[in-house]
Amino acid sequence: MAYRDLEQELCSIARPISVLGERWTLIVLRQAFLGARRFDDFQSPLGISRSLLTDRLVRLVAAGVLERRPYQSGQRTREEYRLTDKGRDLWPVLMALRAWGDRYMAPDGPFVVYRHRGCDGVVDVEYACAGCGQQHLSVRDVRPEAGPGAHAARPGPADDGHADPESRPAETRGR
Amino acid sequence: MAYRDLEQELCSIARPISVLGERWTLIVLRQAFLGARRFDDFQSPLGISRSLLTDRLVRLVAAGVLERRPYQSGQRTREEYRLTDKGRDLWPVLMALRAWGDRYMAPDGPFVVYRHRGCDGVVDVEYACAGCGQQHLSVRDVRPEAGPGAHAARPGPADDGHADPESRPAETRGR
Repeated sequence: MAYRDLEQELCSIARPISVLGERWTLIVLRQAFLGARRFDDFQSPLGISRSLLTDRLVRLVAAGVLERRPYQSGQRTREEYRLTDKGRDLWPVLMALRAWGDRYMAPDGPFVVYRHRGCDGVVDVEYACAGCGQQHLSVRDVRPEAGPGAHAARPGPADDGHADPESRPAETRGR
Repeated sequence: MAYRDLEQELCSIARPISVLGERWTLIVLRQAFLGARRFDDFQSPLGISRSLLTDRLVRLVAAGVLERRPYQSGQRTREEYRLTDKGRDLWPVLMALRAWGDRYMAPDGPFVVYRHRGCDGVVDVEYACAGCGQQHLSVRDVRPEAGPGAHAARPGPADDGHADPESRPAETRGR
Protein backbone atom coordinates (compact mmCIF):
# COMPACT_ATOMS: atom_id res chain seq x y z
CA MET A 1 0.00 0.00 0.00
CA ALA A 2 1.26 3.48 -0.77
CA TYR A 3 1.06 5.85 2.14
CA ARG A 4 -1.33 8.17 0.34
CA ASP A 5 -3.75 5.29 -0.14
CA LEU A 6 -4.61 5.56 3.54
CA GLU A 7 -6.80 8.46 2.52
CA GLN A 8 -9.07 5.98 0.74
CA GLU A 9 -9.43 3.51 3.60
CA LEU A 10 -12.90 3.12 5.06
CA CYS A 11 -11.54 4.28 8.38
CA SER A 12 -11.72 7.67 10.03
CA ILE A 13 -8.48 6.97 11.86
CA ALA A 14 -6.51 6.15 8.72
CA ARG A 15 -7.75 9.12 6.72
CA PRO A 16 -6.43 11.80 9.10
CA ILE A 17 -3.21 9.83 9.46
CA SER A 18 -2.76 10.12 5.70
CA VAL A 19 -2.67 13.90 6.26
CA LEU A 20 -0.83 14.10 9.58
CA GLY A 21 1.15 10.92 9.99
CA GLU A 22 4.42 11.89 8.38
CA ARG A 23 7.59 12.91 10.14
CA TRP A 24 7.47 16.57 11.21
CA THR A 25 3.88 17.21 10.14
CA LEU A 26 2.42 17.12 13.65
CA ILE A 27 5.25 19.33 14.87
CA VAL A 28 4.52 21.84 12.12
CA LEU A 29 0.93 21.77 13.31
CA ARG A 30 2.05 22.34 16.89
CA GLN A 31 4.09 25.32 15.71
CA ALA A 32 0.97 26.74 14.06
CA PHE A 33 -0.91 26.48 17.36
CA LEU A 34 2.03 28.14 19.10
CA GLY A 35 1.54 31.12 16.80
CA ALA A 36 3.88 30.39 13.90
CA ARG A 37 2.62 31.98 10.70
CA ARG A 38 5.55 32.84 8.52
CA PHE A 39 7.87 30.34 6.95
CA ASP A 40 10.74 31.33 9.21
CA ASP A 41 8.52 31.03 12.30
CA PHE A 42 8.22 27.37 11.45
CA GLN A 43 11.71 26.85 10.12
CA SER A 44 13.91 28.56 12.70
CA PRO A 45 12.87 26.69 15.86
CA LEU A 46 12.85 23.32 14.13
CA GLY A 47 15.95 23.72 12.00
CA ILE A 48 14.61 21.37 9.35
CA SER A 49 15.39 21.81 5.70
CA ARG A 50 13.41 24.38 3.79
CA SER A 51 12.37 21.86 1.18
CA LEU A 52 11.05 19.46 3.80
CA LEU A 53 9.14 22.23 5.53
CA THR A 54 7.75 23.46 2.22
CA ASP A 55 6.50 19.97 1.49
CA ARG A 56 4.73 19.73 4.82
CA LEU A 57 3.17 23.17 4.55
CA VAL A 58 1.97 22.49 1.00
CA ARG A 59 0.33 19.27 2.11
CA LEU A 60 -1.37 20.91 5.08
CA VAL A 61 -2.67 23.66 2.79
CA ALA A 62 -3.89 21.05 0.30
CA ALA A 63 -5.70 19.29 3.15
CA GLY A 64 -7.36 22.53 4.25
CA VAL A 65 -5.64 22.55 7.65
CA LEU A 66 -3.65 25.69 6.87
CA GLU A 67 -4.41 28.47 4.45
CA ARG A 68 -2.09 30.96 2.80
CA ARG A 69 -2.66 34.65 3.37
CA PRO A 70 -0.64 37.47 1.83
CA TYR A 71 1.32 39.89 3.97
CA GLN A 72 3.64 42.78 3.19
CA SER A 73 7.35 42.33 3.81
CA GLY A 74 8.97 45.65 2.83
CA GLN A 75 8.20 46.11 -0.86
CA ARG A 76 7.28 42.48 -1.36
CA THR A 77 4.09 40.59 -0.83
CA ARG A 78 4.69 37.25 0.81
CA GLU A 79 2.44 34.56 2.17
CA GLU A 80 1.94 33.34 5.67
CA TYR A 81 0.20 30.20 6.88
CA ARG A 82 -2.82 30.38 9.13
CA LEU A 83 -4.82 27.65 10.76
CA THR A 84 -8.26 27.23 9.26
CA ASP A 85 -11.27 26.23 11.36
CA LYS A 86 -10.63 22.71 10.15
CA GLY A 87 -7.06 23.03 11.37
CA ARG A 88 -8.07 24.42 14.75
CA ASP A 89 -10.35 21.42 15.16
CA LEU A 90 -7.20 19.30 15.38
CA TRP A 91 -6.49 20.78 18.80
CA PRO A 92 -7.92 17.73 20.62
CA VAL A 93 -5.46 15.52 18.76
CA LEU A 94 -2.54 17.51 20.10
CA MET A 95 -4.12 17.60 23.54
CA ALA A 96 -4.58 13.83 23.52
CA LEU A 97 -0.90 13.46 22.65
CA ARG A 98 -0.06 15.91 25.41
CA ALA A 99 -2.09 14.06 28.01
CA TRP A 100 -0.17 10.91 27.20
CA GLY A 101 3.11 12.80 27.15
CA ASP A 102 2.37 14.31 30.53
CA ARG A 103 1.64 10.88 31.91
CA TYR A 104 4.53 8.95 30.45
CA MET A 105 7.20 11.33 29.19
CA ALA A 106 7.24 14.19 31.70
CA PRO A 107 8.71 12.75 34.92
CA ASP A 108 8.73 16.14 36.68
CA GLY A 109 5.13 16.86 35.78
CA PRO A 110 3.46 18.76 32.96
CA PHE A 111 5.41 21.51 31.24
CA VAL A 112 2.21 23.37 30.51
CA VAL A 113 -1.14 23.27 32.27
CA TYR A 114 -4.18 24.36 30.29
CA ARG A 115 -6.86 26.28 32.14
CA HIS A 116 -10.36 27.17 31.11
CA ARG A 117 -10.66 30.90 30.48
CA GLY A 118 -14.17 30.77 31.87
CA CYS A 119 -13.53 29.31 35.32
CA ASP A 120 -9.77 28.65 35.54
CA GLY A 121 -10.39 24.92 35.88
CA VAL A 122 -7.95 22.48 34.36
CA VAL A 123 -8.93 21.43 30.86
CA ASP A 124 -8.15 18.03 29.50
CA VAL A 125 -9.12 15.51 26.92
CA GLU A 126 -11.73 13.05 28.08
CA TYR A 127 -12.90 9.92 26.41
CA ALA A 128 -16.44 10.06 27.69
CA CYS A 129 -19.91 8.68 27.14
CA ALA A 130 -22.51 11.11 25.85
CA GLY A 131 -25.25 8.84 27.23
CA CYS A 132 -24.42 8.36 30.90
CA GLY A 133 -21.61 10.90 31.23
CA GLN A 134 -19.00 8.44 32.42
CA GLN A 135 -15.52 9.80 31.83
CA HIS A 136 -12.03 8.36 31.44
CA LEU A 137 -13.25 5.48 29.35
CA SER A 138 -10.71 3.13 27.82
CA VAL A 139 -10.74 1.02 24.71
CA ARG A 140 -12.13 -1.84 26.78
CA ASP A 141 -15.20 0.17 27.68
CA VAL A 142 -16.38 0.55 24.12
CA ARG A 143 -18.07 -1.55 21.50
CA PRO A 144 -17.59 -0.50 17.88
CA GLU A 145 -20.44 -0.90 15.44
CA ALA A 146 -20.77 -0.15 11.75
CA GLY A 147 -21.79 3.44 11.10
CA PRO A 148 -23.56 5.12 8.17
CA GLY A 149 -20.31 5.61 6.26
CA ALA A 150 -19.71 1.87 6.29
CA HIS A 151 -23.19 1.16 4.99
CA ALA A 152 -22.87 3.82 2.28
CA ALA A 153 -19.58 2.32 1.14
CA ARG A 154 -20.92 -1.22 1.12
CA PRO A 155 -24.59 -1.56 0.29
CA GLY A 156 -25.93 -4.80 1.64
CA PRO A 157 -24.64 -6.80 4.56
CA ALA A 158 -21.46 -5.42 6.04
CA ASP A 159 -18.54 -7.61 5.06
CA ASP A 160 -15.70 -5.41 6.16
CA GLY A 161 -13.82 -6.88 9.06
CA HIS A 162 -13.01 -3.42 10.27
CA ALA A 163 -16.49 -1.98 10.45
CA ASP A 164 -18.39 -5.15 11.22
CA PRO A 165 -19.25 -5.21 14.91
CA GLU A 166 -19.05 -9.00 14.93
CA SER A 167 -15.35 -8.86 14.14
CA ARG A 168 -14.61 -5.97 16.38
CA PRO A 169 -11.13 -5.14 17.57
CA ALA A 170 -9.75 -7.79 19.87
CA GLU A 171 -8.60 -5.11 22.28
CA THR A 172 -12.19 -4.02 22.82
CA ARG A 173 -13.59 -7.44 23.54
CA GLY A 174 -14.80 -8.20 27.00
CA ARG A 175 -12.40 -10.11 29.23
CA MET B 1 17.16 19.52 14.73
CA ALA B 2 17.21 15.77 14.36
CA TYR B 3 13.81 14.15 14.62
CA ARG B 4 14.79 12.13 17.68
CA ASP B 5 15.68 15.35 19.50
CA LEU B 6 11.96 16.04 19.83
CA GLU B 7 12.08 13.59 22.71
CA GLN B 8 14.16 16.11 24.66
CA GLU B 9 11.93 19.12 24.07
CA LEU B 10 10.27 20.61 27.14
CA CYS B 11 6.92 19.88 25.57
CA SER B 12 4.52 17.03 26.20
CA ILE B 13 3.23 17.32 22.65
CA ALA B 14 6.65 16.99 21.04
CA ARG B 15 7.77 14.03 23.13
CA PRO B 16 4.98 11.68 22.06
CA ILE B 17 5.39 12.87 18.49
CA SER B 18 9.01 11.71 18.66
CA VAL B 19 7.60 8.23 19.26
CA LEU B 20 4.52 8.28 17.03
CA GLY B 21 5.05 10.93 14.39
CA GLU B 22 6.68 8.91 11.68
CA ARG B 23 5.06 7.57 8.58
CA TRP B 24 3.15 4.32 9.29
CA THR B 25 3.71 4.34 13.05
CA LEU B 26 0.20 5.49 13.92
CA ILE B 27 -1.24 2.99 11.47
CA VAL B 28 0.77 0.20 13.08
CA LEU B 29 -0.71 1.34 16.37
CA ARG B 30 -4.21 1.28 14.88
CA GLN B 31 -3.56 -2.28 13.70
CA ALA B 32 -2.60 -3.23 17.24
CA PHE B 33 -5.90 -1.86 18.54
CA LEU B 34 -7.70 -3.77 15.78
CA GLY B 35 -6.22 -6.95 17.20
CA ALA B 36 -3.02 -7.43 15.22
CA ARG B 37 -0.41 -9.28 17.22
CA ARG B 38 1.78 -11.26 14.87
CA PHE B 39 4.10 -9.73 12.35
CA ASP B 40 1.96 -10.87 9.44
CA ASP B 41 -1.18 -9.44 11.09
CA PHE B 42 0.48 -6.06 10.74
CA GLN B 43 2.22 -6.65 7.45
CA SER B 44 -0.45 -8.26 5.29
CA PRO B 45 -3.18 -5.59 5.45
CA LEU B 46 -0.71 -2.74 5.02
CA GLY B 47 1.55 -4.27 2.42
CA ILE B 48 4.52 -2.27 3.63
CA SER B 49 8.04 -3.63 3.49
CA ARG B 50 9.07 -6.01 6.22
CA SER B 51 12.10 -3.91 7.10
CA LEU B 52 10.00 -0.77 7.50
CA LEU B 53 7.48 -2.60 9.65
CA THR B 54 10.26 -4.13 11.73
CA ASP B 55 11.68 -0.68 12.35
CA ARG B 56 8.33 0.65 13.52
CA LEU B 57 7.64 -2.31 15.77
CA VAL B 58 11.11 -2.12 17.31
CA ARG B 59 10.64 1.55 18.08
CA LEU B 60 7.22 1.00 19.62
CA VAL B 61 8.66 -1.78 21.78
CA ALA B 62 11.55 0.47 22.81
CA ALA B 63 9.05 3.15 23.76
CA GLY B 64 7.07 0.68 25.88
CA VAL B 65 3.95 0.97 23.72
CA LEU B 66 4.15 -2.64 22.55
CA GLU B 67 5.77 -5.62 24.21
CA ARG B 68 7.02 -8.85 22.72
CA ARG B 69 5.55 -12.11 23.93
CA PRO B 70 6.58 -15.58 22.79
CA TYR B 71 4.13 -17.90 21.06
CA GLN B 72 4.44 -21.35 19.51
CA SER B 73 4.32 -21.69 15.75
CA GLY B 74 4.64 -25.38 15.02
CA GLN B 75 8.02 -26.40 16.36
CA ARG B 76 9.27 -22.85 16.60
CA THR B 77 8.88 -20.19 19.23
CA ARG B 78 8.12 -16.82 17.72
CA GLU B 79 7.20 -13.47 19.16
CA GLU B 80 4.06 -11.46 18.89
CA TYR B 81 3.46 -7.84 19.74
CA ARG B 82 0.95 -6.84 22.38
CA LEU B 83 -0.19 -3.43 23.52
CA THR B 84 1.04 -2.54 26.98
CA ASP B 85 -1.04 -0.45 29.37
CA LYS B 86 1.02 2.50 28.21
CA GLY B 87 0.10 1.62 24.65
CA ARG B 88 -3.59 1.22 25.42
CA ASP B 89 -3.51 4.69 26.93
CA LEU B 90 -2.92 6.01 23.42
CA TRP B 91 -6.49 5.15 22.53
CA PRO B 92 -7.69 8.75 23.04
CA VAL B 93 -5.14 9.90 20.47
CA LEU B 94 -6.62 7.60 17.86
CA MET B 95 -10.12 8.60 18.90
CA ALA B 96 -9.27 12.28 18.57
CA LEU B 97 -7.98 11.59 15.07
CA ARG B 98 -11.15 9.64 14.35
CA ALA B 99 -13.42 12.42 15.56
CA TRP B 100 -11.71 14.80 13.16
CA GLY B 101 -11.78 12.21 10.40
CA ASP B 102 -15.49 11.65 10.92
CA ARG B 103 -16.09 15.36 10.73
CA TYR B 104 -13.95 16.22 7.73
CA MET B 105 -13.03 13.08 5.83
CA ALA B 106 -16.11 10.86 6.01
CA PRO B 107 -18.74 12.55 3.82
CA ASP B 108 -21.23 9.69 4.23
CA GLY B 109 -20.88 9.65 7.99
CA PRO B 110 -18.75 7.66 10.41
CA PHE B 111 -17.55 4.24 9.34
CA VAL B 112 -17.58 3.07 12.94
CA VAL B 113 -19.60 4.30 15.90
CA TYR B 114 -18.23 3.58 19.35
CA ARG B 115 -20.73 2.75 22.05
CA HIS B 116 -20.28 2.50 25.78
CA ARG B 117 -20.56 -1.08 26.95
CA GLY B 118 -22.23 0.15 30.10
CA CYS B 119 -25.18 2.08 28.67
CA ASP B 120 -24.85 1.88 24.86
CA GLY B 121 -24.36 5.64 24.65
CA VAL B 122 -22.09 7.08 22.00
CA VAL B 123 -18.56 7.58 23.25
CA ASP B 124 -16.39 10.36 21.99
CA VAL B 125 -13.39 12.46 22.81
CA GLU B 126 -14.19 15.62 24.66
CA TYR B 127 -11.96 18.54 25.39
CA ALA B 128 -13.59 19.49 28.65
CA CYS B 129 -13.08 21.52 31.82
CA ALA B 130 -12.67 19.53 35.02
CA GLY B 131 -13.75 22.61 36.99
CA CYS B 132 -17.10 23.61 35.55
CA GLY B 133 -17.72 20.61 33.31
CA GLN B 134 -18.05 22.61 30.10
CA GLN B 135 -17.46 20.38 27.09
CA HIS B 136 -16.40 20.85 23.47
CA LEU B 137 -13.81 23.45 24.38
CA SER B 138 -11.54 24.79 21.67
CA VAL B 139 -8.03 26.15 21.73
CA ARG B 140 -9.50 29.61 22.19
CA ASP B 141 -11.15 28.61 25.43
CA VAL B 142 -7.91 27.78 27.19
CA ARG B 143 -5.05 29.64 28.78
CA PRO B 144 -1.74 27.77 29.07
CA GLU B 145 0.42 28.32 32.10
CA ALA B 146 3.79 26.92 33.12
CA GLY B 147 3.47 23.62 34.96
CA PRO B 148 5.74 21.82 37.43
CA GLY B 149 7.78 20.21 34.66
CA ALA B 150 8.70 23.64 33.32
CA HIS B 151 9.78 24.85 36.75
CA ALA B 152 11.80 21.68 37.36
CA ALA B 153 13.58 22.11 34.04
CA ARG B 154 14.32 25.79 34.64
CA PRO B 155 14.84 26.78 38.25
CA GLY B 156 14.16 30.45 38.71
CA PRO B 157 11.91 32.67 36.64
CA ALA B 158 10.46 30.93 33.63
CA ASP B 159 12.22 32.10 30.50
CA ASP B 160 10.93 29.56 28.06
CA GLY B 161 8.73 31.11 25.44
CA HIS B 162 6.78 27.91 25.18
CA ALA B 163 5.90 27.38 28.82
CA ASP B 164 5.70 31.00 29.93
CA PRO B 165 2.06 32.00 30.17
CA GLU B 166 2.92 35.55 29.16
CA SER B 167 4.10 34.39 25.78
CA ARG B 168 1.33 31.95 25.30
CA PRO B 169 0.34 30.58 21.92
CA ALA B 170 -1.10 33.25 19.68
CA GLU B 171 -3.94 30.93 18.77
CA THR B 172 -5.08 30.87 22.37
CA ARG B 173 -5.08 34.60 22.92
CA GLY B 174 -8.38 36.33 23.36
CA ARG B 175 -9.82 37.95 20.29
